[in-house]
Amino acid sequence: MSKGIILLSGGLDSSVTAYIAKKECKELNALFVEYGQRHIREWESSSRIAESLGVPLKTISVPISELVETSLTGQKAVPMGPSDGIPDTWVPQRNSIFLALAFAYAETLEADRVYIGVNHIDYSGYPDCRPEFIESAQITLNMASKRYVATGVKTRIMTPLLQLSKKEIIRVGLGLEVPFGLTWSCYQGGEKACGKCDSCSIRLAAFEAVGIQDPLEYEGK
Amino acid sequence: MSKGIILLSGGLDSSVTAYIAKKECKELNALFVEYGQRHIREWESSSRIAESLGVPLKTISVPISELVETSLTGQKAVPMGPSDGIPDTWVPQRNSIFLALAFAYAETLEADRVYIGVNHIDYSGYPDCRPEFIESAQITLNMASKRYVATGVKTRIMTPLLQLSKKEIIRVGLGLEVPFGLTWSCYQGGEKACGKCDSCSIRLAAFEAVGIQDPLEYEGK
Repeated sequence: MSKGIILLSGGLDSSVTAYIAKKECKELNALFVEYGQRHIREWESSSRIAESLGVPLKTISVPISELVETSLTGQKAVPMGPSDGIPDTWVPQRNSIFLALAFAYAETLEADRVYIGVNHIDYSGYPDCRPEFIESAQITLNMASKRYVATGVKTRIMTPLLQLSKKEIIRVGLGLEVPFGLTWSCYQGGEKACGKCDSCSIRLAAFEAVGIQDPLEYEGK
Repeated sequence: MSKGIILLSGGLDSSVTAYIAKKECKELNALFVEYGQRHIREWESSSRIAESLGVPLKTISVPISELVETSLTGQKAVPMGPSDGIPDTWVPQRNSIFLALAFAYAETLEADRVYIGVNHIDYSGYPDCRPEFIESAQITLNMASKRYVATGVKTRIMTPLLQLSKKEIIRVGLGLEVPFGLTWSCYQGGEKACGKCDSCSIRLAAFEAVGIQDPLEYEGK
């Protein structure tokens, strides 16, 4: 069995990935990156998901928001519903930075797997969620890993949700008894999920397709 | 002419690289990453080098030291003189993190070049200073770049010192009138450079080989 690190954001995808990782690893550690996102509710969700799994959560503050302009950190408005092309919620190099941090932490913990809940079926069109990016990142980050350079043993990037639809992700989560009510997908920073942004729209449509009620509270419902 | 970002650490290599970049770019911005290093003197040097070039310096705090154990952030002693293999001053994924941050910033500034002062001739044996890592990082980071995905135009990682000896780097710096006295290479956090750590040893030997005096003050001299 492996030692793993899960990049936890408190969203539906990373939470389901965490539950998968917990089953696959003899030891699991969660890493949350606070990067200036307006939806800090993500941290609360990550914390509660980690607690529900009995997994230690490490939080690191990396103010990517000081380098980029994105609606997720407040410099632009959050677009409502799906966009054409790469939307304004795009945070440049977010997964590059997250994966590099996770690989650094993996070297300390001697972990051989880094889990990330990327998905490129029902997603917002972010370039760093595509399979070719993940494959390339695995090659690059291993080249800068002491163990790989010394022994040739790779740290693997695990993306169990990559090719699943959101509907399938919810079904997998149901099977693993993921507490969906603790997760948070909304791009806005409100008390309740807005139900209208790209992320909420994709989530709600998927719950409807599965035929169950999303246990999360939404504004105006 | 290009728009560039220079990853400035205040060391001899990144300072010489900054002077090269200034000549090659119509616009240059410097980025300093404060990562918990014990030699915070690096920031002062970066600031003075950026000032000497008339280049804006952006500082971002990314506490890599919370994820890793390295002598550069105080968890281990700084080794004296050269080491076999990868020394304890190794900061896992440092250049992966720095380059990912610089590419994020490049997307905001619409820069098409990221300069980094890596060198793999007279160096400490860090895996993320090798040419194969840099090439791979350029591929990976462009895959997560909006412009590359939309237009196929790459952001290039510029490594003008990669194949130069430290002696040659000093000669290039002399030609560009780099104020070497403002740079800082020592791994320790003292008032004066220690003259004994790996980084000081390489630097002092190179100045001696060039046949000029290092203008930096050293302990006990």
